Amino acid sequence: MRKVIALLTDFGLEDNFVGIMKGVILRINPAARLVDLSHAIEPQNIREGALALQSAYRYFPRGTIFLAVVDPGVGSARAALIVKSKGYLFLGPDNGILAPVISDEGKVDVYSIANDRYFLKPVSRTFHGRDVFAPVAAHLSLGRHPRQFGRRLHNYRRLPIPEPRVDRGKGSISGEVIDVDRFGNLLTNIRETDLKPSRGKIVAVVKGRTIQGLSLSYAHAKRGELLAVIGSKGYLEISRNLGSAKDLLRTGIGQTVVVRWDR
Amino acid sequence: MRKVIALLTDFGLEDNFVGIMKGVILRINPAARLVDLSHAIEPQNIREGALALQSAYRYFPRGTIFLAVVDPGVGSARAALIVKSKGYLFLGPDNGILAPVISDEGKVDVYSIANDRYFLKPVSRTFHGRDVFAPVAAHLSLGRHPRQFGRRLHNYRRLPIPEPRVDRGKGSISGEVIDVDRFGNLLTNIRETDLKPSRGKIVAVVKGRTIQGLSLSYAHAKRGELLAVIGSKGYLEISRNLGSAKDLLRTGIGQTVVVRWDR
Amino acid sequence: MRKVIALLTDFGLEDNFVGIMKGVILRINPAARLVDLSHAIEPQNIREGALALQSAYRYFPRGTIFLAVVDPGVGSARAALIVKSKGYLFLGPDNGILAPVISDEGKVDVYSIANDRYFLKPVSRTFHGRDVFAPVAAHLSLGRHPRQFGRRLHNYRRLPIPEPRVDRGKGSISGEVIDVDRFGNLLTNIRETDLKPSRGKIVAVVKGRTIQGLSLSYAHAKRGELLAVIGSKGYLEISRNLGSAKDLLRTGIGQTVVVRWDR
Repeated sequence: MRKVIALLTDFGLEDNFVGIMKGVILRINPAARLVDLSHAIEPQNIREGALALQSAYRYFPRGTIFLAVVDPGVGSARAALIVKSKGYLFLGPDNGILAPVISDEGKVDVYSIANDRYFLKPVSRTFHGRDVFAPVAAHLSLGRHPRQFGRRLHNYRRLPIPEPRVDRGKGSISGEVIDVDRFGNLLTNIRETDLKPSRGKIVAVVKGRTIQGLSLSYAHAKRGELLAVIGSKGYLEISRNLGSAKDLLRTGIGQTVVVRWDR
Repeated sequence: MRKVIALLTDFGLEDNFVGIMKGVILRINPAARLVDLSHAIEPQNIREGALALQSAYRYFPRGTIFLAVVDPGVGSARAALIVKSKGYLFLGPDNGILAPVISDEGKVDVYSIANDRYFLKPVSRTFHGRDVFAPVAAHLSLGRHPRQFGRRLHNYRRLPIPEPRVDRGKGSISGEVIDVDRFGNLLTNIRETDLKPSRGKIVAVVKGRTIQGLSLSYAHAKRGELLAVIGSKGYLEISRNLGSAKDLLRTGIGQTVVVRWDR
Repeated sequence: MRKVIALLTDFGLEDNFVGIMKGVILRINPAARLVDLSHAIEPQNIREGALALQSAYRYFPRGTIFLAVVDPGVGSARAALIVKSKGYLFLGPDNGILAPVISDEGKVDVYSIANDRYFLKPVSRTFHGRDVFAPVAAHLSLGRHPRQFGRRLHNYRRLPIPEPRVDRGKGSISGEVIDVDRFGNLLTNIRETDLKPSRGKIVAVVKGRTIQGLSLSYAHAKRGELLAVIGSKGYLEISRNLGSAKDLLRTGIGQTVVVRWDR
């Protein structure tokens, strides 16, 4: 079965960990199609991993199996999960990394990964990506049902993403930077739908700098100028034409961004 | 159709952008073979992307589709191109990134990417790699003709690579460093054919240091010594045995390199 | 033939070198399955490359072809090898990078890579990964026998990995850090079997800090605390709960680690 298995980890590419997981998968299902979603999640940053998975999975073919291993509790008693939604399968530790996709997908069945018949033995205490998640993903890609790996679960971790705060008195909305990409664009938690175009032109304020209106794209601003734009994930981004907003503003994740309306 | 699609971007591997593009492609053509050419092009450095594509594409199978997305003008009015040569298809923004391969391939047909029937909707203003280039590449890999995506174009950007300057009076040639690789080798724009072996042994001068003659390989020099060598791309390189020429000379792209002949 | 070809190099992903090697392979065998083992070996660090290959290859499907190119002597007279074991094929320069797998696999046949009929011509002096190793690996993946590429060899380089030293007088064992991973875990050359549980609880000493006992996993310690654990490769690791042991101890490869027993 030529199922796609997409890998998301905090292992980096400096070591051979990711290569080893691929070896394990291909030994069980030589026809699996392996795609790297990202291996550059900050070590042990579950929230960053959860957001990277949530913003990507919808673009993959139905039937894709996602392996999300950001796992500071590896070797402890934390459960390992298989989440089955209408379109996809997700595997990961029960530490919140799968919580946003569980929330987005709505109707899901969640199973524990417990049947060690499918594990690589001896199971190490430090590398379940290799010994547990990779072989289970490979066996799932051969068509096994999640229930063959463990029992149905009804309690599992949820990870709240901070919601922007609406101040009705001031008529403003206060969000924060939740991610910064390679280009120095500041991704906020303010959604396009929060911006209510009927209320007029927005004004975004970040670190005392004021940005007038939404730009249509990164290129719709003067060279080096700050701009506000709806990014590819549907969230407000603070960006800089031909430059890095992060470097100009010397800021990062957690920075407050306030939007008001200029009527 | 098991066509190869090779990806070249400035997206880096820190984010999930490249993984998302692969998801989009596999959803349209599950049999596409995806190869990363590089995602480490310096952000928005069109010239670096153009050179990385130009020096690599000939090594790929005939029929390979190249996706080259270094696109500071994304969301503006810049056109997007499909270039069809005898052996290959190239996709990218009309900003010069495809100019060297257009020049090298000679006889090409160039089409605009305009038919939004093939785009991912809604088309974002910031991520045409996902919404435009990836789906069009996937549809091309299924056998569609470039003309199904837009009209034939006759005007498109060209990107000049600086030519070395010949000083007939001094009998020397003056080039510059156009790329530096991971090993600290300085790649110049002086071609092997410029070195005219009939004129005798060359002397290369860079930052006041003199290098006598061409070495056969990086290993043909004393430990730590600077050397001149014809690199794998057919250009003169300034290198250092078991070390980094860049670090020793504290220099980089743009550095003048003069060659004269020692008769 | 859908053979797996696994690539290990010190080329990094900043340049297009790895992408070019994949293009060369796919031009010869379009059905080859390419897997990156690692391209982040420190430039010219043969020992690091050898260890990365040794600790990974067993996880791959039988029949996998490994391409290991860390090659400071490229272009000199060093031989290039094909090593055929019962389960695998290994290609690399004869500089010790294949020595640990030769030692682990036991019964192997070693051949030189000499028949330039299979090389990409003209063969450069600086990029045998592209011109020699990639095309030979591709032809091997099509089913050719190693003897078609050169003659049987009986002399080839071996690379000693330092053995931990046992001090019977003091009743202690003295090893060293041989690798540091992305998480700052210090991998030593002390094997699980060296720790002889029958002798009681171990005490590990590194840079004057004392660690009592073995932890079951990274998570089995207080926040920020140093711990000793058997890593996924079967060696003793010095780690830190939710942090980097490397950064805390300001140390790296070569650091002495002493283990004694607390009876």
